[in-house]
Amino acid sequence: MPRQSIKTDDAGKLRQLGDAIRASRKALGLSQEALADASGIDRSHMGKIERGERNVSVLNVARVAEALETSVASLMASAGL
Amino acid sequence: MPRQSIKTDDAGKLRQLGDAIRASRKALGLSQEALADASGIDRSHMGKIERGERNVSVLNVARVAEALETSVASLMASAGL
Repeated sequence: MPRQSIKTDDAGKLRQLGDAIRASRKALGLSQEALADASGIDRSHMGKIERGERNVSVLNVARVAEALETSVASLMASAGL
Repeated sequence: MPRQSIKTDDAGKLRQLGDAIRASRKALGLSQEALADASGIDRSHMGKIERGERNVSVLNVARVAEALETSVASLMASAGL
């Protein structure tokens, strides 16, 4: 369950970002655990990010984008944000 | 002062984002207070975001982008992120 209550519209955005991260990760053939480790993010936190259950910070998105060999801007564009 | 300690590289990224937000805001002729109000973000928090002193969340970036009539992806691209 989300740590903080997240409104419906907002949940949609977080899910879009999580879906974009998952798609990019799979395109690279990475497991969720490998991406978490490469990003320096706790594995269970990464799972929540991919499910759109966390209002992730810009710095964590930057770490994930770097591990996915892409930019934050590209990741956001893939997410439709 | 930042609420949490932020590493040098990371501080650079947050400053890049803050600079991009400020430039976009000024291009629209908005005051910082007007942008804060339009984004539903506390005015002092907005000042810290523009100065790169806050590791802002994706949802708050989305609110700011919407108030700036742009997308998160465009804002991140302007920030070089």
